[in-house]
Amino acid sequence: MTENIKTGQNSVPKVDFKEIIAEYKDDLQRVEKGIADNFQTDVTIIPKVSSYLTAGGGKRIRPLLLIASAKLCGYTGANRYIKHSVVVEYIHTATLLHDDVVDDADTRRGGASANIKFGNQASVLVGDFLFAKSFQIMSEDNDIRVIQAVSRATRLLAEGEVLQLVNTMNTDITEKEYLETIYRKTGALIETCLIVGAILGGAPKESELALAEYGRNIGLAFQLVDDALDYAGQAQTWGKPLGADISEGKITMPLIRALKLADKKEKEVIHKALETDKISKLQLEEVIEILNRHKTLAYTMNQAREYVNTAKKLLSGFPPSSGLTSLCAIADYIVDRDI
Amino acid sequence: MTENIKTGQNSVPKVDFKEIIAEYKDDLQRVEKGIADNFQTDVTIIPKVSSYLTAGGGKRIRPLLLIASAKLCGYTGANRYIKHSVVVEYIHTATLLHDDVVDDADTRRGGASANIKFGNQASVLVGDFLFAKSFQIMSEDNDIRVIQAVSRATRLLAEGEVLQLVNTMNTDITEKEYLETIYRKTGALIETCLIVGAILGGAPKESELALAEYGRNIGLAFQLVDDALDYAGQAQTWGKPLGADISEGKITMPLIRALKLADKKEKEVIHKALETDKISKLQLEEVIEILNRHKTLAYTMNQAREYVNTAKKLLSGFPPSSGLTSLCAIADYIVDRDI
Repeated sequence: MTENIKTGQNSVPKVDFKEIIAEYKDDLQRVEKGIADNFQTDVTIIPKVSSYLTAGGGKRIRPLLLIASAKLCGYTGANRYIKHSVVVEYIHTATLLHDDVVDDADTRRGGASANIKFGNQASVLVGDFLFAKSFQIMSEDNDIRVIQAVSRATRLLAEGEVLQLVNTMNTDITEKEYLETIYRKTGALIETCLIVGAILGGAPKESELALAEYGRNIGLAFQLVDDALDYAGQAQTWGKPLGADISEGKITMPLIRALKLADKKEKEVIHKALETDKISKLQLEEVIEILNRHKTLAYTMNQAREYVNTAKKLLSGFPPSSGLTSLCAIADYIVDRDI
Repeated sequence: MTENIKTGQNSVPKVDFKEIIAEYKDDLQRVEKGIADNFQTDVTIIPKVSSYLTAGGGKRIRPLLLIASAKLCGYTGANRYIKHSVVVEYIHTATLLHDDVVDDADTRRGGASANIKFGNQASVLVGDFLFAKSFQIMSEDNDIRVIQAVSRATRLLAEGEVLQLVNTMNTDITEKEYLETIYRKTGALIETCLIVGAILGGAPKESELALAEYGRNIGLAFQLVDDALDYAGQAQTWGKPLGADISEGKITMPLIRALKLADKKEKEVIHKALETDKISKLQLEEVIEILNRHKTLAYTMNQAREYVNTAKKLLSGFPPSSGLTSLCAIADYIVDRDI
C-alpha cells in the first residue's frame, strides 16, 4: 500500500493491482480449475479450442470484479462466485471466438487467434458451446435473478457486436453512438459481474444499483483504454499488432475525435488508411501523427479517467472493506495498465 | 380423418398433417407474431436478418410439438406455450444461421441463405442475438425447469454441430456414432419441445419421460428423412440442391450404409465425389445409382419409419385426446413428407 486517496466520503487505501491478484490468488486458481473442468466433454476438440483461448493469458478482470463485489456485499460462501466467474469468462470467451471470426483476425493475446489455428467453423461452434454451457451452469445454480441479469447482458453484447459491425467504416458515427455501442459490447457484461456479486451477497437494491453503475463506468473506461492502446500500446505486451482497429475499419474514440478536428488533408489520410485492405507502417505512422497532433489519444484516456473517477465515487456509500479496496484498485488498474 | 391405426393399446384416429396445421392455426399465428415481435430492437439489421430467415417458410414442427405436448398434458393457459415456441424457434434459427456459415451454404429453403445475403459476420452475430434473446424470454417466464431443459438441449446441439464438423469426410464413421451425432444435433431440441410442453402441463414424471422418449425417436427419424431427401427429394419442394450433403463432405446414413456394402470401384466413386470441391451432375447421379443399387435410401427411410413407430408406441399410456392425435399425426408426417 502506498498512499490514501479520497473516493467520495471514504478514505480507501490505494493498493497496487498486483496485490489484488495476490490476495485473490486462491479464488483465481479455483476459477481456472472451473474453467478447465466445465468444458470437458466427449467431443474432444471442444476442450482443445477452449483451453487454447482460455489458457492464453486473459486478465480475468470479470471474475475479479464478480468476486470482489460478492465479498463487498457480504457473501460468505465459497463456491457460487467461482461458478459464476466461469459463466462470465465463458460468455466473454465465446464473444472473442465469434469476434475473431467476424474480424477475420490473425492474432489474439500475442498468439495466432483460434480461427487461424482451428478454423472459423470450430470457432463459431465452440463459441456456441461456451454460451450454452454457461447457461447450463446457471440453470443448475438455480437463481433466476442471476439468469435474468446474465441473459440481458448477453443480449446487449450481441447487439453491441452487431452495432460495431454495421458501423464499420462509418466515419459519421458520433461519440454518443459510439459510447452506446461500447456500453453494450463491453460495459454490459462488466456491469453484470458486479450485479451478480451483489445478488450473491444479498445486497439491498440501492447497493446493487451503485455497483452496477460503477461497473458500467469502468466498462466504458476499459474499452476506451483498449481503443487508445490499439494505437499507442507496446506491441510486445499488447499482444496484437498496433493499428488493428483501423485495419479492420473500426472507428473508435481516438479516430472519431480526430475526424472532428482534422483538416481536409488529414481527413483524406484517415479515409485512405481506412479504405486500404492492409494498412502500411507508413500509413499507420501518419494516422498516429494526426491523432497526436490533435491530442485524441490523450482525450480518450482522459475520458477513461473520468469514468474511473465517477465509478469510484459511486462506491462512496460503502463502509471500508477489503472488497471496496479491491474494486477501487481494479478501477485504477483499468486506466493505468499497458496491456 | 381417414382410418384408425393401432398405436399400442390406444386406437388413435389417423389425421392428415394439414388438418393439424388447420387445428393449430390460431396458435401458430400467435407464434409467428411472437417470433416477429421479439426480435425487434433498435439495432435495425437484427430484425432484418432474423425475419429474412424466419419468414422463409419453416415448418414450425418444434412449436407444433411443444403446443401439442402442453395440451396433451393438460396445460390450460394460452400464453406460455407461445413464448416457449418462440424460444425453440429462435434457438433453431440461430443454429441454421451458424450452420450456413460453417457449411458455407448458398441456399436455404429455396432462397439465398442469410450468409450469402447479409454476410457471414451478420449471420454469426444475429445468431448470437437469437440465442441470447431466447434465454432472456425464458428468464422472464421464470421457470427453472424449462431453463434447465433448454440449456441442456442447446449445449447438446452445439456438441452435435461440432461432432458433425469433426466427422466431415470421415468415411469410417459408424452408424452408432452417426446416430449419436444426429441425436445431439437434431433430436435433443425436438425432445426438449416435448419436455417443455410436459412441464407447462404439470405432467407427472413418467409422462414427461415418455414424451421425451417420443421426441428423441421422432427427432432421429426427422434427420434420417432429411438425409434421404437430400439425395431423393424433389428439388422444387426440397428448397436445397440435391446432393448438398456429399458436396459439403457430410457422411450421412445413406452414405454410411453404402460405404459398408459397396465394392472397391463403388467406394472409389464415393470417395472421389466427396473429395471434389464442386460435385458434378454426373458424379451425383453415379453416387445416387450406388445408393439405389444397395437400397440405402430405402434402408434409411425404414430406420426412420421404425423410430416413428417406436415413438407412437411410447404414447400408448395416454388416454385419447386431441393432443395425442396431433402427436401421432406429426410423427407420421415426419416420414411421409417430401419437404
